[in-house]
Amino acid sequence: MLENTDRTELSSLGEFGLIKHLTQFVEIKNESTIKGIGDDAAVIDFKGKQTIVSTDMLVEGVHFDLAYMPLKHLGFKSVSVNLSDIYAMNAMPKQITISLAISSRFSVEALEELYAGMMMACKKHNVDIVGGDTTSSKSGLVISITAIGEASSDEIVYRNTAKEGDLLCVTGDLGGAYVGLQLLEREKQIFLESPGVQPDLEGNDYILERQLKPEARKDIPGLLKKLEVKPTSMIDISDGLASEILHITTLSNVGCNLYEEKIPIDPSTYNMAREFNLDPTVCALSGGEDYELLFTIDQADFPKIKANPDITIIGHVTHIKEGVNLISKGGTSMPLTAQGWDSLLNKK
Amino acid sequence: MLENTDRTELSSLGEFGLIKHLTQFVEIKNESTIKGIGDDAAVIDFKGKQTIVSTDMLVEGVHFDLAYMPLKHLGFKSVSVNLSDIYAMNAMPKQITISLAISSRFSVEALEELYAGMMMACKKHNVDIVGGDTTSSKSGLVISITAIGEASSDEIVYRNTAKEGDLLCVTGDLGGAYVGLQLLEREKQIFLESPGVQPDLEGNDYILERQLKPEARKDIPGLLKKLEVKPTSMIDISDGLASEILHITTLSNVGCNLYEEKIPIDPSTYNMAREFNLDPTVCALSGGEDYELLFTIDQADFPKIKANPDITIIGHVTHIKEGVNLISKGGTSMPLTAQGWDSLLNKK
Repeated sequence: MLENTDRTELSSLGEFGLIKHLTQFVEIKNESTIKGIGDDAAVIDFKGKQTIVSTDMLVEGVHFDLAYMPLKHLGFKSVSVNLSDIYAMNAMPKQITISLAISSRFSVEALEELYAGMMMACKKHNVDIVGGDTTSSKSGLVISITAIGEASSDEIVYRNTAKEGDLLCVTGDLGGAYVGLQLLEREKQIFLESPGVQPDLEGNDYILERQLKPEARKDIPGLLKKLEVKPTSMIDISDGLASEILHITTLSNVGCNLYEEKIPIDPSTYNMAREFNLDPTVCALSGGEDYELLFTIDQADFPKIKANPDITIIGHVTHIKEGVNLISKGGTSMPLTAQGWDSLLNKK
Repeated sequence: MLENTDRTELSSLGEFGLIKHLTQFVEIKNESTIKGIGDDAAVIDFKGKQTIVSTDMLVEGVHFDLAYMPLKHLGFKSVSVNLSDIYAMNAMPKQITISLAISSRFSVEALEELYAGMMMACKKHNVDIVGGDTTSSKSGLVISITAIGEASSDEIVYRNTAKEGDLLCVTGDLGGAYVGLQLLEREKQIFLESPGVQPDLEGNDYILERQLKPEARKDIPGLLKKLEVKPTSMIDISDGLASEILHITTLSNVGCNLYEEKIPIDPSTYNMAREFNLDPTVCALSGGEDYELLFTIDQADFPKIKANPDITIIGHVTHIKEGVNLISKGGTSMPLTAQGWDSLLNKK
């Protein structure tokens, strides 16, 4: 997908030259950014608000496969997944730092693509790039991003404060990123076996975008404020719905009933899961990488959110003694477990 | 140097288990740390002070060689070099996040050593570990640390504010880390060629410590405050004195005269450099990794610092037209250039 045919070697620029080249179009847009790139450290002034900090590391061959992940998309995604953690605190991200370890197999043009995707995500989320580090790697690409945001102390929402009787809510729909990955893996295998065959990705834009270009829910903290709802707890969905529900219930010392029929799944996710002989519910529960927000609200806030198309109520919080359960479409209750990714891969 | 003979595989703990295991003794000591490890993000409240952020990435085989770098020292050093950037802003570090990419060749015990070194540095600098990420790597170890600190806006010192007539000062002494590295490299070669020969490191504690266990200058911001001196510019010495002087002069649009005879070099550094047929001055100028602080002060502040054993005046700031010069012991003036590491390696 790279259209650049020129190749400039990294060694032709050197470390300082490369950093200067990649960051030449970086602009500072936030008033809170006092000093960005170019000193020993960045300086930020949130003027009495609290500072929110989250960090993620993405490793080639572990978190991404450049065989089907274009570098621009990788850049966009690596920033988005970090910002998602800030939104999950009901806070707004304002700055990021970007550290890269790169091998000489990457050209300057390839890194320009990566950076272009990162800057696209920053623009979308109104976030400033204020620092980072660029170094060589002996093998693959490693991306480490730290996101910094702000919130006043009374706005911040933690994971450990859900309480019995609360409603369990989720934004958007789930499972799409996982079936998108299955589709990309299948087409990669076909390509490896028969290099002449073009990948068959037509009509699957939605699930491919969910995997390749996830959107962190920038809109939700503002929406909740407008609706005058402060969640009692919140987390973002990176590892799958089941795992995140268990984080909230364990840390909050509560139980929970999750209703299978309420879990929002897009029709295209549903159909593609079926094509792969995967249970769509399992994809939503354990697939991960949806970067939607999972939160609990007080029952009294139900009228404020019930008509909102972006939010689905999927269960309710119970006493810890009742456990964490999935109530199936048939009405059977079974304990919810976090199966995670690996065990899912071989599932029917 | 690891005394553990037991080996616990990383896979026996899993990602969440490993993070929990490594961070079980992490304590929060700073009032500004509202929320540490365990949520989507950390929450920090500097109560009106500004937030200072710096990040560094260390890659095995590029920045460190585990053949002679014990993991505990590596942990200590990787934290220290990040904190050094915060001190270089005349600020105090308060929190760090630690991201690790690790291959399965590391055992749980090895990571415990690494973490023990990191926690030792945190304790020394009164810094809280508030978050991070732990992931697998296809090959070597990658460490990415983000340091977060605080300062009031009138205390912060930047790189680009040196002015003509200022005095150029440096803390401690220089070149030791570089000759320490030469010694370690030599003994590694001897060991590789004759595995039975014990390394000859006796009597070289100082330069070995400079390389393996550098101390970020925590004392300097406080000392300067006590002396009632606010530097006009400041930077930490990671790449070598010459390179850092050029950063300050370029960004401040000034020139500078640096006096060779004034550069502080410890006798053990001097002697070992001579043993390697290296020019001690070149080691100080281009060796790097000393993590001392380089700063400029107004001439009027001279009486306040002149008697201080931790600070040496090594030159003065001139008009940009005069250029950046090294005045040799013989009185000759020559333009100062940043040779950097690689070119130094083959120097006589």
